[in-house]
Amino acid sequence: MQDSGNCYKPRLLMHRLGIPFRLVDTDSRDGSTRTPEFLALNPTGKVPLLVLPDGRRLSESNAMLLHLAEGTRYLPADRYERALTYQWLFFEQYSHEPYIAVARSLLHLTPGGRETIAPARLAELHERGYRALAVMEQRLAESDWLAGGSYSVADIALYAYTHMAGEGDFDLAAYPRIRAWLARVAAEPGHVGIDWRP
Amino acid sequence: MQDSGNCYKPRLLMHRLGIPFRLVDTDSRDGSTRTPEFLALNPTGKVPLLVLPDGRRLSESNAMLLHLAEGTRYLPADRYERALTYQWLFFEQYSHEPYIAVARSLLHLTPGGRETIAPARLAELHERGYRALAVMEQRLAESDWLAGGSYSVADIALYAYTHMAGEGDFDLAAYPRIRAWLARVAAEPGHVGIDWRP
Repeated sequence: MQDSGNCYKPRLLMHRLGIPFRLVDTDSRDGSTRTPEFLALNPTGKVPLLVLPDGRRLSESNAMLLHLAEGTRYLPADRYERALTYQWLFFEQYSHEPYIAVARSLLHLTPGGRETIAPARLAELHERGYRALAVMEQRLAESDWLAGGSYSVADIALYAYTHMAGEGDFDLAAYPRIRAWLARVAAEPGHVGIDWRP
Repeated sequence: MQDSGNCYKPRLLMHRLGIPFRLVDTDSRDGSTRTPEFLALNPTGKVPLLVLPDGRRLSESNAMLLHLAEGTRYLPADRYERALTYQWLFFEQYSHEPYIAVARSLLHLTPGGRETIAPARLAELHERGYRALAVMEQRLAESDWLAGGSYSVADIALYAYTHMAGEGDFDLAAYPRIRAWLARVAAEPGHVGIDWRP
């Protein structure tokens, strides 16, 4: 589901690592992640799903990032910076994605979603999403990168939905450090956008 | 906040690892995680927060588990089993905790919560929570432990709120493999319950 930020994360990292892979399009919006065939591959019924060369499978986009980055410069060698990488990956899934990605999905990807979302529901998504953005803004006042001294999978994980936050009606005008960080991520050698396919 | 499953996770692991530590009681329900002093320590305003001996801080309970378990038998040495550990930790925070822990919090910990929760809201928490339990039940048909061949931080992370699921009105009668796994976890040498304090 290539317009999903969660699917974009491992695609971007595999491109940067030079790992060849094949995309299989599967869209949760048309029910194809709830078929018996797909559930046999991934019981959670979610994308992305990574199938390794030996057929073993791995779900959860941020688990893929940690797995693929092991032993590379995308996972910090310093133990505390690695711990901060974990911290930002869990922050992304618990405090960022459920608000920023969900607002984008409802307003931008769901036909008729903008017209039918309850105002109180949207207000809550925005309040929690802006709270997550404020935490990132504060961190980026201390460091150019989220987890440590250089670009890591923490930046990939948070970039995915932050760079599309406007599609969920988030305004980044008051977050100059986030905007500068988004530009830094996009300027990294080997960066590809969400539309890129192998 | 010792009745929080998220706070229980690192407490249990540190006990098993023999790491001495000091508890500082901080309760998100009385506003003490939103004070300027606490937000200076953890900008997300959440517990648990781990303060290392050198004063550096780490948030996110599952990040603490990965950090503390590194190099120990609680994080699998096999690369694929380690990846599965990551997978279960993200599953716990995205697909399990937001339903099972939240139902428990509303029904068991919030004064008047049982009387005021909207039936549709509780039905959604139960539907999503049972979906997570079904994924665990299926996995535990293949293996005694979630991530690999032995007890790991994946088991600690999922045990925390699963063993208290009844406090959120979840009935585990139809999940015999989960019940057997809960008993296995509790029978591990060095296991301590949520009431344990150092």
